[in-house]
Amino acid sequence: MSNKIRVAICGYGNLGRGVEKEIVKSEDMDLTAIFTRRDPSSLVINSDTPVVSMNEMENWKEKIDVVIMCGGSATDLPEQVPEVAKMFSTVDSFDTHAKIPEYFEKVDNAAKSANNTSLISGGWDPGMFSIMRVYANSILAEGNTYTFWGKGVSQGHSDAIRRVPGVKDAKQYTIPIEDAMNRVRSGENPVLTTGEKHLRECFVVAEDGADKAEIERQIKTMPNYFDEYETTVHFISEEELKANHSKMPHGGFVIHSGETGDGNKQIIEYSLKLDSNPEFTASVLICLARATYRLNQEGKFGAKTVLDVPPAYFSKKSGEELRKELL
Amino acid sequence: MSNKIRVAICGYGNLGRGVEKEIVKSEDMDLTAIFTRRDPSSLVINSDTPVVSMNEMENWKEKIDVVIMCGGSATDLPEQVPEVAKMFSTVDSFDTHAKIPEYFEKVDNAAKSANNTSLISGGWDPGMFSIMRVYANSILAEGNTYTFWGKGVSQGHSDAIRRVPGVKDAKQYTIPIEDAMNRVRSGENPVLTTGEKHLRECFVVAEDGADKAEIERQIKTMPNYFDEYETTVHFISEEELKANHSKMPHGGFVIHSGETGDGNKQIIEYSLKLDSNPEFTASVLICLARATYRLNQEGKFGAKTVLDVPPAYFSKKSGEELRKELL
Repeated sequence: MSNKIRVAICGYGNLGRGVEKEIVKSEDMDLTAIFTRRDPSSLVINSDTPVVSMNEMENWKEKIDVVIMCGGSATDLPEQVPEVAKMFSTVDSFDTHAKIPEYFEKVDNAAKSANNTSLISGGWDPGMFSIMRVYANSILAEGNTYTFWGKGVSQGHSDAIRRVPGVKDAKQYTIPIEDAMNRVRSGENPVLTTGEKHLRECFVVAEDGADKAEIERQIKTMPNYFDEYETTVHFISEEELKANHSKMPHGGFVIHSGETGDGNKQIIEYSLKLDSNPEFTASVLICLARATYRLNQEGKFGAKTVLDVPPAYFSKKSGEELRKELL
Repeated sequence: MSNKIRVAICGYGNLGRGVEKEIVKSEDMDLTAIFTRRDPSSLVINSDTPVVSMNEMENWKEKIDVVIMCGGSATDLPEQVPEVAKMFSTVDSFDTHAKIPEYFEKVDNAAKSANNTSLISGGWDPGMFSIMRVYANSILAEGNTYTFWGKGVSQGHSDAIRRVPGVKDAKQYTIPIEDAMNRVRSGENPVLTTGEKHLRECFVVAEDGADKAEIERQIKTMPNYFDEYETTVHFISEEELKANHSKMPHGGFVIHSGETGDGNKQIIEYSLKLDSNPEFTASVLICLARATYRLNQEGKFGAKTVLDVPPAYFSKKSGEELRKELL
């Protein structure tokens, strides 16, 4: 009998594949099953993990400690997690900031009803960036926190461009404005809108014969997505898009500018520069699966967030090892 | 009756003064007493807090929740904390990395014997930097973590220079080597000694008629402190030292360079740029006093470190507020 934490994946897209690939580095864990909404026999996976229909999850209750929920935030997670949390402890990366309190309530009730623990909104934003915002705001209460995203691909903005008539395919990069970051780093404490912090760069493949000027106009004036930003649009070929823009890099910065004593400036900065957004997010979720298992063992049931997790719970090392090697 | 956390300071040097100055920003805390080894009537402080001899600490047992220990790591803390932890929950910034396991044991026994909680080795390194090393190592297990210090004043190195014959006063700055940092940020994973990561810059006031060439030689060849570093020595006047080098700036960088999937580079960086090292350290210790109080209320007795503290415990905000505002 193994003492490993038995982990399952639910949802096999970019994130699910990332978890499958990265979990082998955690010797304290076993990947037990991959759950899918699709016909399991149709799924081509990268390991010999059993692929199981989501309809059969209930039968696996005794065989799994934590399920990493890898669906999307728009519709998958709000539907799935409150259901799955009645059967298993879960980890997810729900990232619709405004809806987190409502989502927390629902998942909390479901998880508590079955003595499960559900870690919501893991990943890096929300997730690691949230942790950094809380540390910085707590330490330097007199100060301001700025979050910049990028350079990276925004899936939501890329999708929005693809819905413009005449667009065949597209990728959108969010780019933080260096000058704005440097103003923050200097301790100036500027007031900045999201649009003053970021540029948006779009690479668009147009359908044959499409009106490119009209496409560009529609993108640049799209409410919420682009109208408040400095946006550039490049038309490129399908081959070029595939060759140069098929990776999923991302990253960002949390910069806190505070003051202590008689005008002493104190700057805290955390940044991520990621070649692969889904693989990094997967790596965070794997640590959080470990943490969630430990919280559950301690009887801490219900919904939790990264803010409730001691840093040591991310690690497979013992407290003694951590104090000796990393403190 | 107040519901505030009742905090005391033990030791009134730069750090103690920093805590006294910064704690007013925490409306959930009251500064109850300042304990000193000196004659209390001789202490000139910056608030109307009662100043009490350390010999009388025992009489304050019912009036204080947490004592922030502000002595030095070399001799004060190893002596004082195991004694004080028998009376009070404590927070300290013990920073002799190699001796932490031994120190932990002693404080752990003392605190457990009285159902107290003692947070050891808070501050920023060890402290916030330790947290960052654990997060990064856990998330990206395939990777390397690099810690750079500076630009900042090293008290230990400044003291070492002052012991050289003919030296009247001195300040030493530790400076991280930009080129080494950029090699790390590129994902190159170089092997770097501490000397390859840092320069040492010394500002020295010589006694009248002292042999400056000999002073410089003695500094540059001093074992452990300078011999393995590129060191520059500037001789300046006493007035210049006072005018330009009396502040206590510091800071540093924790950079983790990891890999996921098929060679995707993932870089995590955390940095501090501090105008005042003692005021920042004080600000961290104040948050840790809040956290220590909460851990103690939960019955978590004995020695703890920052790695055992959930980020939310740093904050005076509720879980609900944090999820809404900062997650």
